[in-house]
Amino acid sequence: MKVGIYPGSFDPITNGHLDIIQRASNICDEVVVSVLMNPSKNPLFSLEERVELIKEVVKPFPNVKVDCFSGLLVDYLKAKDAKIIIKGLRAVSDFEYEFQMALMNRKLAPDIETIFLMTSSKNSYLSSSIVKEVAKFGGCIEGLVPDLIRKAIFKKL
Amino acid sequence: MKVGIYPGSFDPITNGHLDIIQRASNICDEVVVSVLMNPSKNPLFSLEERVELIKEVVKPFPNVKVDCFSGLLVDYLKAKDAKIIIKGLRAVSDFEYEFQMALMNRKLAPDIETIFLMTSSKNSYLSSSIVKEVAKFGGCIEGLVPDLIRKAIFKKL
Amino acid sequence: MKVGIYPGSFDPITNGHLDIIQRASNICDEVVVSVLMNPSKNPLFSLEERVELIKEVVKPFPNVKVDCFSGLLVDYLKAKDAKIIIKGLRAVSDFEYEFQMALMNRKLAPDIETIFLMTSSKNSYLSSSIVKEVAKFGGCIEGLVPDLIRKAIFKKL
Amino acid sequence: MKVGIYPGSFDPITNGHLDIIQRASNICDEVVVSVLMNPSKNPLFSLEERVELIKEVVKPFPNVKVDCFSGLLVDYLKAKDAKIIIKGLRAVSDFEYEFQMALMNRKLAPDIETIFLMTSSKNSYLSSSIVKEVAKFGGCIEGLVPDLIRKAIFKKL
Amino acid sequence: MKVGIYPGSFDPITNGHLDIIQRASNICDEVVVSVLMNPSKNPLFSLEERVELIKEVVKPFPNVKVDCFSGLLVDYLKAKDAKIIIKGLRAVSDFEYEFQMALMNRKLAPDIETIFLMTSSKNSYLSSSIVKEVAKFGGCIEGLVPDLIRKAIFKKL
Amino acid sequence: MKVGIYPGSFDPITNGHLDIIQRASNICDEVVVSVLMNPSKNPLFSLEERVELIKEVVKPFPNVKVDCFSGLLVDYLKAKDAKIIIKGLRAVSDFEYEFQMALMNRKLAPDIETIFLMTSSKNSYLSSSIVKEVAKFGGCIEGLVPDLIRKAIFKKL
Repeated sequence: MKVGIYPGSFDPITNGHLDIIQRASNICDEVVVSVLMNPSKNPLFSLEERVELIKEVVKPFPNVKVDCFSGLLVDYLKAKDAKIIIKGLRAVSDFEYEFQMALMNRKLAPDIETIFLMTSSKNSYLSSSIVKEVAKFGGCIEGLVPDLIRKAIFKKL
Repeated sequence: MKVGIYPGSFDPITNGHLDIIQRASNICDEVVVSVLMNPSKNPLFSLEERVELIKEVVKPFPNVKVDCFSGLLVDYLKAKDAKIIIKGLRAVSDFEYEFQMALMNRKLAPDIETIFLMTSSKNSYLSSSIVKEVAKFGGCIEGLVPDLIRKAIFKKL
Repeated sequence: MKVGIYPGSFDPITNGHLDIIQRASNICDEVVVSVLMNPSKNPLFSLEERVELIKEVVKPFPNVKVDCFSGLLVDYLKAKDAKIIIKGLRAVSDFEYEFQMALMNRKLAPDIETIFLMTSSKNSYLSSSIVKEVAKFGGCIEGLVPDLIRKAIFKKL
Repeated sequence: MKVGIYPGSFDPITNGHLDIIQRASNICDEVVVSVLMNPSKNPLFSLEERVELIKEVVKPFPNVKVDCFSGLLVDYLKAKDAKIIIKGLRAVSDFEYEFQMALMNRKLAPDIETIFLMTSSKNSYLSSSIVKEVAKFGGCIEGLVPDLIRKAIFKKL
Repeated sequence: MKVGIYPGSFDPITNGHLDIIQRASNICDEVVVSVLMNPSKNPLFSLEERVELIKEVVKPFPNVKVDCFSGLLVDYLKAKDAKIIIKGLRAVSDFEYEFQMALMNRKLAPDIETIFLMTSSKNSYLSSSIVKEVAKFGGCIEGLVPDLIRKAIFKKL
Repeated sequence: MKVGIYPGSFDPITNGHLDIIQRASNICDEVVVSVLMNPSKNPLFSLEERVELIKEVVKPFPNVKVDCFSGLLVDYLKAKDAKIIIKGLRAVSDFEYEFQMALMNRKLAPDIETIFLMTSSKNSYLSSSIVKEVAKFGGCIEGLVPDLIRKAIFKKL
């Protein structure tokens, strides 16, 4: 059974992330969306909140689970006995950074593979931070995040 | 009457910015250079200083005005009844980021268009931050910013 | 009156071109779509056919005209007393090439400005050649070109 | 059973291709290396030769098959009832082009997904054409292609 | 006698840096590895420690010296009567930034030239910060930094 | 004595090439501008003409010689007992291709190093082919090539 791990901050999850999750769920037998515990960042949503919100929005996908991790991504995959990292690509600058991380992960764990999926072009400009920026100034974020997330963002702000 | 809004931090305005302003003033009936109020950054010049300095250097262009704004750029354009955002392009990495912002702005306000102008190749490496960095260490910034700005920078430092 | 020239091969015009024409028609007082006579290429549609097809599809835009030219683009603009070149941007590699051409045109005619408009992200992968390639192998090109063009392509092939 | 199609010209197969095939064979249940029949190109090896050479070098991978196709890639996948296109990424310019093709393929067949795998960094400069170029001038191509291919190239030249 | 200055933070030196130093030592008569004193950053190793560590690892190269500097790089070169800045290139995003810095340095000191060397492809993903990140989480950094540096990092953490 | 080889087609030499030659002549003890004999291309100037034209324009640089070669660049360097390849960089797309060639050359001859120099930003859009294209249509190419070359081009056309 092929398990794909989709790691990220997801602060919060956007329609761009959801797009990748849906595509990954068609390719892998099981997808685990894994929220990174990163104590050095100052998130809008707590780790628990992020996990709960993702659980809500991935309900339509029966083979998608939600989890969280800290430390090295490859150590987390080894502990889960998983071999596949899922990454979404939006643009060239994404690719540069993701390429670097994927090569480092390959050095650390040669039997773990990173596979890249393309976001839909209509989501090509989406990121958690740009969504939060727009919401902070009262802009309309419909169509950028699931409805549930939109409400959660405005409740926070 | 076609009004183009040229937004930015302009901390301080450089010859690269001035190059774009001059080009925009040939294309648009009116250009408004709009300084973004960004409380989270720690600028070298206050908002008022930046507006005053820009007013001085754009005096040769009769159809260029100076203003400031906070919040979402598209909301500012709507309030001014303007439809055109002016952006300068220097390099690929500029383009990536500006592309993302322009697509987001198009989503927020489909009738507002972003137009990109190329800086002169002789200004291709100029930015406010690199100019401040050079000035801080006593480097010569002649030819990088208008004379007035050069004096203002050294007065500050 | 500000006239923008939108040059290209348009063999044939796609929805990506049409997207740029619509955006340009909102910015310029007049837009001239100018088909390049390029004897060295082996086009699918003759120059006359391309001009006629574009005339049909730009009918909804009252301020858009269609023309053709040969030789240097800047000489053509001078003859038309126009100062603005319109270019569409899709991706980084576009930008590299367009940047080079725009700098050369600026050298040849310093008072002519190139302005870049972004295609809609949903058209970001469109080009005349990819459309022809798909059509040649019987692929569906609905939504990629106007209906009129789709029929003209299949009549040719 | 998840089948991944790895399409290409493979004129001839290099160690870079083989690297991707090996990675794909770890991810997919079955990988089909599919040689494109492209009558407009003038290949070094005939279609039959290319298929035979690939069959030899993929022998170590029990879940890898070799095939050929003409026409649209997505039509070929539909005929094979496959849903996954495998692509190798080497550099930014690869990505631009592959992104365009993948978006077009998604338009033509929304339920077919393209997944990108990274070549090993030691193969990042490899392509069939650079290998042939080097071989043509008598350069050493050991380590760039499998031994079998190296002999076949020198027999041809 | 041609002296090449190789500037950087080197916090700490990696095998990627060492790769560039070795290549530079083959090209220049003398190479000076110069550690930038940057008070605004919070380094893992003090300036003195970094200089000492580099001195240890460059011992095999008789024409390589180690130094440190503050202020503008070009002023430092003038004081040393050196004309050549050495820079390593890994990827496109490196290039963008390095291009900007090199053009600024050329403006400040037209007779100083920046020369770019390519890192080995096997080091293409290496940086001091990614090495520290991996080490912090207990990942194996053998092969990424010299042994001496690996021990120094784990002593610090 | 460090000899740098600057290879290319030089059909014809432009001010961009000359810019790189001047910079290389400040760095290397001797620079050899080497024209590639490429029978598959259809050049404007014959190999002999190109060599003669370059000899004329590099007269001001006493340490620059002109030569030609065929076959693999690294074999040519070995025959000349040279260890350094000089390359000019203009833009990202240059870099991609040059990176690929440099890595291949390093594989073929590990002791030969490629060093990259940046063209002046004012030459960033220059290439032999764009100059010929402009000249063909009667455009002004002053400032793009040395005067001698300009006359030679118009004599040919």
